[in-house]
Amino acid sequence: MIRAGIVGYGNLGKALEGNVKESDDFQLVKIFTRRNPEDFGQGFDSLSNVWAYKDQIDILFLALGSARDIPELGPKLGEHFNTVDAYDNHSLIPDHLATMQEANEINGKTSLVATGWDPGLFSFNRAMVDSLFYEKKLYTFWGPGVSQGHSDAIRRIEGVKRAVQYTVPKEEILKNIKDNEKQLSSQDMHDRICFVVSEDGTDQEKIEEEIKTMPDYFSAYHTEVNFISEEDFERDHTGIPHGGQVIGIGRTSDGTKQSVTYQLELESNPQYTSLVNIMCGRACYRFNQEGKIGSYTIFDIPLTYFSRKSREELIKKFL
Amino acid sequence: MIRAGIVGYGNLGKALEGNVKESDDFQLVKIFTRRNPEDFGQGFDSLSNVWAYKDQIDILFLALGSARDIPELGPKLGEHFNTVDAYDNHSLIPDHLATMQEANEINGKTSLVATGWDPGLFSFNRAMVDSLFYEKKLYTFWGPGVSQGHSDAIRRIEGVKRAVQYTVPKEEILKNIKDNEKQLSSQDMHDRICFVVSEDGTDQEKIEEEIKTMPDYFSAYHTEVNFISEEDFERDHTGIPHGGQVIGIGRTSDGTKQSVTYQLELESNPQYTSLVNIMCGRACYRFNQEGKIGSYTIFDIPLTYFSRKSREELIKKFL
Repeated sequence: MIRAGIVGYGNLGKALEGNVKESDDFQLVKIFTRRNPEDFGQGFDSLSNVWAYKDQIDILFLALGSARDIPELGPKLGEHFNTVDAYDNHSLIPDHLATMQEANEINGKTSLVATGWDPGLFSFNRAMVDSLFYEKKLYTFWGPGVSQGHSDAIRRIEGVKRAVQYTVPKEEILKNIKDNEKQLSSQDMHDRICFVVSEDGTDQEKIEEEIKTMPDYFSAYHTEVNFISEEDFERDHTGIPHGGQVIGIGRTSDGTKQSVTYQLELESNPQYTSLVNIMCGRACYRFNQEGKIGSYTIFDIPLTYFSRKSREELIKKFL
Repeated sequence: MIRAGIVGYGNLGKALEGNVKESDDFQLVKIFTRRNPEDFGQGFDSLSNVWAYKDQIDILFLALGSARDIPELGPKLGEHFNTVDAYDNHSLIPDHLATMQEANEINGKTSLVATGWDPGLFSFNRAMVDSLFYEKKLYTFWGPGVSQGHSDAIRRIEGVKRAVQYTVPKEEILKNIKDNEKQLSSQDMHDRICFVVSEDGTDQEKIEEEIKTMPDYFSAYHTEVNFISEEDFERDHTGIPHGGQVIGIGRTSDGTKQSVTYQLELESNPQYTSLVNIMCGRACYRFNQEGKIGSYTIFDIPLTYFSRKSREELIKKFL
């Protein structure tokens, strides 16, 4: 049994809790929170006590935000624990990897960073397409699904009570992607569909205008804003679905076209991310057991390390 | 530069020839054939001379049939060369792997076996789905595409001049697969569509009957037989398209459903298979350079080994 701890108890932490408990090769030791652990019950402890668990935890899942929490806490925790994170600030991953590497080396720990589906399995499929083809086009579509960052941005507007933003691939573009010849930007590929509950007596036209003109988030996109009742919001828009697809189209030496699609349709984004984290936790623990110290990515690990099955069983059953 | 040889000059051998030549990190040394090499030109030599190239070839691609050729020649070649094959007799892969392992160990060589898309990348995705989910369903659909074995079986019938068989996923089943609850067999999931050119004056009804009642190949399937002119055959049915999809549907601890689809649409099956072989050749050579002797599968290799890019570049560009 791999003894696991979870740091953080937001959407991802809760998903990890449920799925670690269902995993027959993991045992959940403790969930660590910066809030009062007594509000949550027996399985919780304060994050400030995590150091007392150094010898009781084989792998620590960092279910923390990428903006501030992982950069601040990751290296401290990676000095004393094997860690898995879902760090998703793409452009800063090389820095994060280097920082974790340094921390890991102090006490011989191992970390697997940026594990989830993007970064994570989508990255894996992008790199695999790149390894296969010489002449190729590579597209990543996100959605249909909830963008947490864009939903947050809408909620900061005055008069907005609740809001959710769905990122939706443009159907026409997606349908014809295999014949596409021009350069595509994210706004060429995606629409942004918003559902908003406004406070009583606010000017909805003003809110809509503020959303549609918001730089970076919305102004460059085709954005649709729908005002709905709180009842409808509660009924239809409280899930966290997501997904998307990585599409690679390559031309081979005889001029024929080959296309590869990796698609995810997720009823719950944090649930799926937590599954990838757990699979990576298994690999991370095994790497550490074999003396492979330091920080790794999903590009560095053979599939056998992710599986609960033996190599022989995998070959017999799936090859 | 990785110095490559190719054994066999059928569809796969020809595809390897074209794509190895396009690969900027490979150099094609020689193609070996059991036919008269002088019929083909300068780049060819007789298979019986292959032993003279032991020190000039870093990786040998075995573009040979799985029924007899690879079992017979694979171990002999694997004793003196690093090899990559597309051995596709699924149930005998463990035996093949063990035989190649023994051969490799004699002179410190490395082999990567059963590389292609099924077995190969489809296998990889099946095993990945299995590693992710605890409660799951896993389906492999093949096609639309040409089944070489089934086409051959039709061509053996008296009165058949030319024939091709397309394996086609049943659209209704595929569309509703995410809600499917019952056990599905290959014949529940696929139709077999045949295009046949008959010899002048033969009884087409008799040929159709023979096809539809052929055990193992057709009798359990919904089979459609179309007789067409040789001109139409030549125009529309001489390509070797294929593809298919691996679909995994998992339920997570909160009861939500997550689905993963890996889909290939290939205008040319041997072209794509050759690309996977080449990517695996790169990995196989690097494994051998690092002293990793013996036989491996696609489950054993980290992605970094398949890529022409450095780990740093992969992380920066694709993670």
